[in-house]
Amino acid sequence: MQYDQNNVFARILRGELPCIKLRETQHTLAFMDVMPQSDGHVLVIPKEPAATIHDVSDAALAECMREVKRVSAAVRDALQPDGMLIAQFNGEAAGQTVPHIHFHIIPRWRDVPLRQHGRVRADDAALEALAGRIRPALTV
Amino acid sequence: MQYDQNNVFARILRGELPCIKLRETQHTLAFMDVMPQSDGHVLVIPKEPAATIHDVSDAALAECMREVKRVSAAVRDALQPDGMLIAQFNGEAAGQTVPHIHFHIIPRWRDVPLRQHGRVRADDAALEALAGRIRPALTV
Repeated sequence: MQYDQNNVFARILRGELPCIKLRETQHTLAFMDVMPQSDGHVLVIPKEPAATIHDVSDAALAECMREVKRVSAAVRDALQPDGMLIAQFNGEAAGQTVPHIHFHIIPRWRDVPLRQHGRVRADDAALEALAGRIRPALTV
Repeated sequence: MQYDQNNVFARILRGELPCIKLRETQHTLAFMDVMPQSDGHVLVIPKEPAATIHDVSDAALAECMREVKRVSAAVRDALQPDGMLIAQFNGEAAGQTVPHIHFHIIPRWRDVPLRQHGRVRADDAALEALAGRIRPALTV
């Protein structure tokens, strides 16, 4: 999968498209997935332009995982799910839809099946409400 | 999820149980999943005793992801899948079955659905044959 400077996440990083932001650090951005598989589905991306795990630098990957850990803890504290799925897709055959490496943080509740990946656009107000609960839990 | 010193991966790390090893580093172990969701399904674990992503240290997490990146490249080079899924489950509700943090590296082929997680024990000879193809590709 080739990197495309005009992919949606590159455009979000450049401020050309909006996102419901949770936190931006020097090297990462965390924001709400607009087609969530469960309530509180968050994406964490490195700012480094890399399409897949095969392309990203060790340093960017480490920074990204450090933020995945912190954001997933905040999602846990805010929403109290029963479990947390961390997933990262490389290539269309694995479900990757945007050619900029991204980590999915997907809260799981017992007996609640995941919604399908990338199918239904969520209501912005509902996403903002969830983000409003998660942000105060982002204490580290 | 509490850490249990007698979980299967802790016992593998202590050499009390066997595994089909791909590579051991100072801080990580990579080995074949014995209930693979696809051919070439590999697990990478830190040696640090941590149950979930919420418990692992930043340093162990970074070492682990560095190894996930390297091993997934070797699986790609050896088996030439169409894509690669990286997944990490926290809590039973998210599918975690062993209370020692582990990263799944799962090759994906177009139009080949994943087998169910943790259901069917694969044949050791088949796993050894796959490991024998992946190990020579582990060049970094």
